[in-house]
Amino acid sequence: MTGRPIIAILGGGQLGRMFLENALRYDVEVHVLDPDPKAPCARLAHRFVQGRFDDHATVMAFAQHAEVIGIEIEHVSVGALEELQRLGKTVIPDPKALRIIQDKGLQKQFYAGHGIPSAPFVMVEDKAGLSAHAHRLPGFLKARTGGYDGKGVMALQPETDLATVFEGPYVLEENTAIALELAVIVVRAMNGTTVVYDPVEMVFDPRLNLVDHLQAPARVDERITSEAKKLALRVAEALASPGVFAVELFLTRDGRVLVNETAPRAHNSGHHTIEACASSQFDQLLRVYMGWPLGDVHLRGLAALINLVGVEGTGIPELRGADDILHLPGTFIHLYGKAETRSGRKMGHVTVLADDQSALDQAIAVSKVHGRVVPARTTSERNEA
Amino acid sequence: MTGRPIIAILGGGQLGRMFLENALRYDVEVHVLDPDPKAPCARLAHRFVQGRFDDHATVMAFAQHAEVIGIEIEHVSVGALEELQRLGKTVIPDPKALRIIQDKGLQKQFYAGHGIPSAPFVMVEDKAGLSAHAHRLPGFLKARTGGYDGKGVMALQPETDLATVFEGPYVLEENTAIALELAVIVVRAMNGTTVVYDPVEMVFDPRLNLVDHLQAPARVDERITSEAKKLALRVAEALASPGVFAVELFLTRDGRVLVNETAPRAHNSGHHTIEACASSQFDQLLRVYMGWPLGDVHLRGLAALINLVGVEGTGIPELRGADDILHLPGTFIHLYGKAETRSGRKMGHVTVLADDQSALDQAIAVSKVHGRVVPARTTSERNEA
Repeated sequence: MTGRPIIAILGGGQLGRMFLENALRYDVEVHVLDPDPKAPCARLAHRFVQGRFDDHATVMAFAQHAEVIGIEIEHVSVGALEELQRLGKTVIPDPKALRIIQDKGLQKQFYAGHGIPSAPFVMVEDKAGLSAHAHRLPGFLKARTGGYDGKGVMALQPETDLATVFEGPYVLEENTAIALELAVIVVRAMNGTTVVYDPVEMVFDPRLNLVDHLQAPARVDERITSEAKKLALRVAEALASPGVFAVELFLTRDGRVLVNETAPRAHNSGHHTIEACASSQFDQLLRVYMGWPLGDVHLRGLAALINLVGVEGTGIPELRGADDILHLPGTFIHLYGKAETRSGRKMGHVTVLADDQSALDQAIAVSKVHGRVVPARTTSERNEA
Repeated sequence: MTGRPIIAILGGGQLGRMFLENALRYDVEVHVLDPDPKAPCARLAHRFVQGRFDDHATVMAFAQHAEVIGIEIEHVSVGALEELQRLGKTVIPDPKALRIIQDKGLQKQFYAGHGIPSAPFVMVEDKAGLSAHAHRLPGFLKARTGGYDGKGVMALQPETDLATVFEGPYVLEENTAIALELAVIVVRAMNGTTVVYDPVEMVFDPRLNLVDHLQAPARVDERITSEAKKLALRVAEALASPGVFAVELFLTRDGRVLVNETAPRAHNSGHHTIEACASSQFDQLLRVYMGWPLGDVHLRGLAALINLVGVEGTGIPELRGADDILHLPGTFIHLYGKAETRSGRKMGHVTVLADDQSALDQAIAVSKVHGRVVPARTTSERNEA
C-alpha cells in the first residue's frame, strides 16, 4: 500500500474507540460504521457512517473504498464480508471463521470436530424441544445466535418456567464444575505467525453476569497456563484466520481446561494489554491489518482490570472518584464516551499495574469503591442537594 | 464539571494529535482550531474548526463553549486568552507566562530577573544595531518572536553577510561552550503541585538544526541530573502557571547548567514518555486541564526517540522500513498523519525502550537506517522502476 491505507471497521463502540486511539499513532485512515450516531467512535473516526453493519448493501457501500475491513462486533453481515473478500479486499477475520463463531452451535461442533475439549452439549431447536432434555438439567442454556454481554445466556434449572426463557435455537451445555474462568488472547498474522498473551483470570459479578474484574497473569500453576495457551492457539490455528481471538476457557474443579467460547476480535479480557504490554491487543490488530510483524506480548508486571459499569440509573454519564483512582501511581482510567449511562452498562474500565499482589489488591479496592459512573446531576438538582 | 467537559486546543499539529490520542481514554470532548484543513487533528477531534489561532476574534468564537483552553503552539492570540480568562474560563498556560515566553527577549530578562542562570545576552533592535555588536561575535542570534523548529535561529559569525539574516528585533547570545543539550519536562497543576521527568539528552543533526534523537535518562552524573531538574522546576515556579513546560538546558564544558529556553507546552523532547512512563506528558496535560492528581513520571528503563524527518522531496508521505522497526520488541512507531511530506519536516518518530545501552543503540541504528518517510510513488512510477 502506498500513501494512507483505509481501514473500515464494522461497529463503533468502545472496542473501535480503543482501536482508533492506538491507530492514531500511525498514518492510517480509519472509517467506522455504526447504527448509533452517538456511538463512541462517532466524530473521532476519519470518517463515520451511520448505518447497520448487519445490512449487506450498507456494508458494501461503506467498505467499497477500504483496503482492509475489520469488525469490532460479531453480529455483522457475513455475506457482505464474503463479497468484499471476493473483490480482493483484505477481510479480517476470515468470514468463514466468523460464520462458525456467530453460531454457538456450529462453534461447539467445530471444537468437537477438531478435538478441542469443551463442555458436553446438545443442540435444541426450540422451547418445545427443551422439555425432552429435562433429564440433563440443571444446565447452561445459550441462544445459538445473537447473544452478547450476558444476554442470551442463562442457567437452566429443572424448575425454570420456560415462558421466561429467550427463544431458540439453543445450545444446552452440561453443567461443568468450574473452579475458575480464564481468557487467552491469541493473535494470528496473515502469514500465519502467532503470538499468545498470558492467560487472565476472570472474576464475575453474579448479579450482572458480567466480568467484575480480571487479573493477569492468572494465578494458576505452570501446567494450567501452558495448557490454556496451547488450547487458545489450537483454536486460532483451526479457524485458520488472521485476527485477534479471545478464547474464554474454564478450569474445572478436577483440573481440566475446556474451551468455553471464542470472540474473533479484541475483547474486554485484553484491555489491560494497553498498559501492561508493549503491544496491546489493539496494536496487534493494526499490525495484522497492515501485514506488519506482530508485537511483544510480554507482561510488564501484575495487572488488573476493573470494569466501570453504570449505576444509579440513566442519564449523561459522570465519573465519580477519578481523583482517588488517578492518585495511585499505576492506575489508568478509560472512559468510552458513551452518550448515556444505564445501570449495568459498560461505561469504561480501570487498569492497574503493580509489582506485588497486595499493591494490586489495594488499587483494585480503591477503583471499585471510588470509581462509579452515575447519571450527571443537573445544576438545579445539585443546588437542591 | 458535570457531564462531558469541553477542552479547546489552539493548534492541530502532531502535539494536538498525541494529546487527542491520550484524551480519547477519557470522556472529554476536544475541540481543535488550526488554519490548515488537513492538519493532523482535522477529522479526529470531536470538533475541528479551520481558522487562525493568532486571530483574536477567531479564537474567541472558537473557545466560547469550552471550559478549558489549551495550546499546542506558542504563536497564538494572547489577547484572546486573557479575555477568555477574564470570562472565568480555565486557560492553560497562564497568558502572563505565555507573553513572557513568546518573546525570547522578555524570556531572557525573566531568567535574569529570577536568578536563573542562562547564557549572557544583549537585545538588539534591528540589523543596523547588529553592527554595533560586531565585537561580540561569533554569537548566537535569535529572532525575539516567531521562531520555530530551527527557524529564526542562527549562528552569527563576524563575516556573516547581514543581508542573509532574518529580521529583528533580536536576542544576541554569547557563544557558550556547550558539552551537551538537555531537556526537562516539568508539570505544574492548578493547585501548584509539580512533577519533574528525568532529563533527556538531545543529539542534534547539525545540517537540519533539528533534534536527531534523544535519550532518557541523560547520561550525566547525579549532580547534573539534580541541577537540571532543580532549574527546570525553578522556571515553572517562577512562571507561576499551570501546564506542561519543556525546559531546554545547556551543560557547558566547564560543568555549569544553563537554561536555554522554555516551551509552555508538550514538546518533542517528551514524546518518549508515551511509552517510557506510566503517565505521558500528554496525559499530564489532561490531568492539569481536569484538575486531577498528576501522574507517575518514573522511567521504565532506557528510552530513545528518533524523529522521522521527511527525505527525498515533497508528496504524499509513505513510511519505509516499518517492518524492520516493528520487528524489534521495544520499538514503537508514531506517524503524525500530515498530508504532505517535505524534506526536513517532522513526519513522525520512533520510540525505543531497552534494558541496556547496547540494545538501545542497536534499535536506534535500525530505526535511523530503515525508517524513512518519502513521497509515495504513484503506480506508474513503480511500474517504470
